[in-house]
Amino acid sequence: MSSYNDRIQALRAQLQRNGLHGFIIPLTDEHMSEYVGAYARRLEWLTGFQGSAGSAAVLADKAAMFVDGRYTLQVRQQVDGALYEYRSVPSEPMADWLAASAAEGARIGYDPWLTTRGFLATASAALSPRGIELVAVEQNPVDAIWADQPAPSAAPAVVQPLDFAGQSSADKRAAIAAQMRAAGAGALVVSALDSIAWLLNIRGSDVSRTPVVRAFALLADDGSVRLFTDPAKITPEVAAHLGPDVTLAPYADFGPALEALKGKVWLDPAWSVAAIFEALARSGATVLERRDPCQLAKATKNPVELSGMRAAHVRDGVAISKFLHSVDSDTPADELAAEARLEAFRRESNLLKDLSFDSISAYGANAASPHYRSTPETSLPLEGDGLYLVDSGGQYPDGTTDITRTVAIGTPTAEMRDRFTRVLKGHIALACARFPKGTRGGQLDILARQFLWSSGCDYAHGTGHGVGHFLGVHEGPQRIAAAVGAAGVDEPLLPGMVLSNEPGYYKAGAYGIRTENLVIVVEDPQPGDEQPMLAFETITLAPIDLRLVEPALLNAEEAAWLDAYHARVREALEGQLDGAARDWLLAATRPLASVIDREAA
Amino acid sequence: MSSYNDRIQALRAQLQRNGLHGFIIPLTDEHMSEYVGAYARRLEWLTGFQGSAGSAAVLADKAAMFVDGRYTLQVRQQVDGALYEYRSVPSEPMADWLAASAAEGARIGYDPWLTTRGFLATASAALSPRGIELVAVEQNPVDAIWADQPAPSAAPAVVQPLDFAGQSSADKRAAIAAQMRAAGAGALVVSALDSIAWLLNIRGSDVSRTPVVRAFALLADDGSVRLFTDPAKITPEVAAHLGPDVTLAPYADFGPALEALKGKVWLDPAWSVAAIFEALARSGATVLERRDPCQLAKATKNPVELSGMRAAHVRDGVAISKFLHSVDSDTPADELAAEARLEAFRRESNLLKDLSFDSISAYGANAASPHYRSTPETSLPLEGDGLYLVDSGGQYPDGTTDITRTVAIGTPTAEMRDRFTRVLKGHIALACARFPKGTRGGQLDILARQFLWSSGCDYAHGTGHGVGHFLGVHEGPQRIAAAVGAAGVDEPLLPGMVLSNEPGYYKAGAYGIRTENLVIVVEDPQPGDEQPMLAFETITLAPIDLRLVEPALLNAEEAAWLDAYHARVREALEGQLDGAARDWLLAATRPLASVIDREAA
Repeated sequence: MSSYNDRIQALRAQLQRNGLHGFIIPLTDEHMSEYVGAYARRLEWLTGFQGSAGSAAVLADKAAMFVDGRYTLQVRQQVDGALYEYRSVPSEPMADWLAASAAEGARIGYDPWLTTRGFLATASAALSPRGIELVAVEQNPVDAIWADQPAPSAAPAVVQPLDFAGQSSADKRAAIAAQMRAAGAGALVVSALDSIAWLLNIRGSDVSRTPVVRAFALLADDGSVRLFTDPAKITPEVAAHLGPDVTLAPYADFGPALEALKGKVWLDPAWSVAAIFEALARSGATVLERRDPCQLAKATKNPVELSGMRAAHVRDGVAISKFLHSVDSDTPADELAAEARLEAFRRESNLLKDLSFDSISAYGANAASPHYRSTPETSLPLEGDGLYLVDSGGQYPDGTTDITRTVAIGTPTAEMRDRFTRVLKGHIALACARFPKGTRGGQLDILARQFLWSSGCDYAHGTGHGVGHFLGVHEGPQRIAAAVGAAGVDEPLLPGMVLSNEPGYYKAGAYGIRTENLVIVVEDPQPGDEQPMLAFETITLAPIDLRLVEPALLNAEEAAWLDAYHARVREALEGQLDGAARDWLLAATRPLASVIDREAA
Repeated sequence: MSSYNDRIQALRAQLQRNGLHGFIIPLTDEHMSEYVGAYARRLEWLTGFQGSAGSAAVLADKAAMFVDGRYTLQVRQQVDGALYEYRSVPSEPMADWLAASAAEGARIGYDPWLTTRGFLATASAALSPRGIELVAVEQNPVDAIWADQPAPSAAPAVVQPLDFAGQSSADKRAAIAAQMRAAGAGALVVSALDSIAWLLNIRGSDVSRTPVVRAFALLADDGSVRLFTDPAKITPEVAAHLGPDVTLAPYADFGPALEALKGKVWLDPAWSVAAIFEALARSGATVLERRDPCQLAKATKNPVELSGMRAAHVRDGVAISKFLHSVDSDTPADELAAEARLEAFRRESNLLKDLSFDSISAYGANAASPHYRSTPETSLPLEGDGLYLVDSGGQYPDGTTDITRTVAIGTPTAEMRDRFTRVLKGHIALACARFPKGTRGGQLDILARQFLWSSGCDYAHGTGHGVGHFLGVHEGPQRIAAAVGAAGVDEPLLPGMVLSNEPGYYKAGAYGIRTENLVIVVEDPQPGDEQPMLAFETITLAPIDLRLVEPALLNAEEAAWLDAYHARVREALEGQLDGAARDWLLAATRPLASVIDREAA
């Protein structure tokens, strides 16, 4: 780990040159992205931390890493404790550590393009009583010392064809512009990369796992756009697609363009870094803080997008079925081999653009960590008796997938079957939910937990997240979860939204279970309804391991759901499989009654 | 209605004498009580409105009544439209009406002892741009013209014995005082009447339906109390019970006492009228705005209180069963006759102190209004085929009850049975819920609605409210409901809390259904639990009408719950009934299988 020592010392020297006593290193980019390009992985480069959420603070004589409960173990494996103290958020926030650790009068630097105004407000409140000042830097001091820092991706943007997008960019821009005029806003700052990709019907490969183009956009209330991005990305085809109402400018011109804005500017504080607010404060513009209107429009998918999502899930289901068959018939050596094999099956379609996130391929006790990622050091052999959990997804031009299956290796215990079946009952209860328009995800969450609760069990994660259309595998604003006040739980579910349905169960040191399908929120009018009703259409198509189902725990309706689901899976996939894989599919999707008969025999 | 014309004209003359251009008349008292004493029924006296929520605003040339959707019809029946415009809240708030109706520069009076600071803030924001001023009055102008206004009740306070209260007032005061010292508060303003009654282990009859004493209390951080109330209420017995640490002062001395407070004063803005804040602003005290600590302590009942609640429910169940038997065997003539008969059965125990709220005794279409109250004009005869709904409760020294039963008169339709059974399934799902500590009522709400939702139906009220111990039939902070941000839905349920479980279904113009039992939140440890679990203990004991149950809609677990519940009812009550009433009970609580057998035969 000596290189990390060299790096932190180099950073300290750089801070001293810059007249700073400390620096804050978050894990995000200028767009508050969940996944970031290689150039933006400053935290990983500096500290070695590879988790998906965390931050560091470096002072002259000490430093600390701040991670949440998911990364308590991982941060200790990846980050040198001699260099960084470990702090757990949210109970031990960075601002408190800085207030206790920095000297009175210290100047702590932050990069305003990587920091939210909300963080600054909270941190200032903690630091200013101690005379500690937060100072925006012009150039990121990590960049100054990171000799081989990759350049931002120069990958070309590509057109997302109307056949997949279902609505032209001009139509989308006109609809958003109408909302802007109604709000009296002359300009809209679009900084979320998925919003830009959706609005302009373009895709890219600047960020792993999410097919977006690194850019900022300013939409005017006439529907015209200034797009700030690396000009090298804009091929003639993309330029022609964008048309005359989209003006191109270099990425670096975005800041100066903000400083020239006047009038009322619509801005979403959830997606806008502090630098954007600071620039608008200098411009004298009036800021309208309101949700990015692209986010809800993007989340409520149109019929063409939904057709694409369904098609992508048939294609993905074929790959998953081939993989699950191979796990049964020719078990991969270990977690990493399994992960690679699944990706290979997905690539067989020739339509896979990327995975939609880093796969979770976890055996035995490793699966008890819901956010586990396999590494050569941790990868367990798939041997003996245990449960193998695989959570993975693909990015296809017509849709994004995200599926989790848990399968038996060897013989499962009665407890495993009990827990698997309770998870499944919750999954079914949510899949079958029928609810009035206006219902929020937070109201539905208990449907997925109730059968675990009746056994005194639970799972410590949400039940469902939004999923994009050939965009982010995690998208808002909708969410199904229990936490009070958590983002999205009070968002009414709307037709066209796609969500995951993924209850689970995790026994520390032993095993993990999760069953995840994606669902579409659909209108569900029925005779006699007294109000407009919604329901879920399950679109993920792959067998659920019947070896793990305890039929006695299912009631008649649940058993009927499982049989009907398996019949759908069989019908959709059997024509695209042959030989042993097809035989496997037919057996894996057989009616539950035949399972019971076999057990009784 | 001419008297109401006289009254509003007299008020206008009084306002003119007071230099006011208008006046606001809320429906509450100095304690933000749900039920108020006769002296405080200014809104009813002025306008004729008898609902439980509403307000009026009177200007020189116009006036308006503001009621919510529950009272849209009733306000038109009771309040003269020639005198008052009808406005619907929350969509048409009073502040907007005043801003549109009052002249620029108008002075609108309000009684600071009947008005919250929150209302004033909202109203000022709407009125000040128009130069309209809100003016606190010294004397309420309605009182000035209400010649025969009753005096506040002089009813004596009574001791709530330790055998019922379970914890001495000294112990309660010591526990609250410890919380005050931890918060650095030297004084606690206790203005909620049920908090005062709980804290001092006293009860009274100053307010209908809630056995409280009209008083304010100031608790010091040493546990001593200054009690501001009519000295005539404090009998020697009560004075002896209160002891030397409770100092008595006249009710009217409370305001001046506030003005003398110094240091940090703990105050709950939800229960404290504007006058209290204004007095503390004058005193220079530092206000600590935090929930009244008595409220949560009161809501989490001790074992003695819970035993009393159970005993009260056996007693109440006897009365309810006698009544339901008599509805079957000797049907009352109409709704009012039924209501009177039920009260008479409750009084047979000789322990009934009061009803816990005005009974809802509703037949046919009247029951479609969840908050219906029967009057001689509306009381329907209990004849023909229909559903009779009765929602009622008693105040007993050892506990408060609240129960709703819906029973068939004549032959119910298949739709009625379907809806009744869906309501029952929801009731059972909530009754059977098992949930981790920390779960909030808002999470559980869907359990009670899900089977109605599956038929496209719902009910437009909450599922459960808190219930006091020989105190308010509605108490916080806990609540089971769906509304985002509504009071109580995010309050974790704690052992000892009592709630109602009351899903319903209402078909406008046709019929109404509700099945309500009270439940206690109990610890529910079971082998294998991975976290502390809670559950509900149902304490209401009365038959659920099997004629309205459609057995085919119940699954095995639901049918078993109903049979087990009826077995409990039978066991608890049969020894206290005899003759035909006992025979009726045995039949009404027979196992569901025998119902099915009879239907099949």
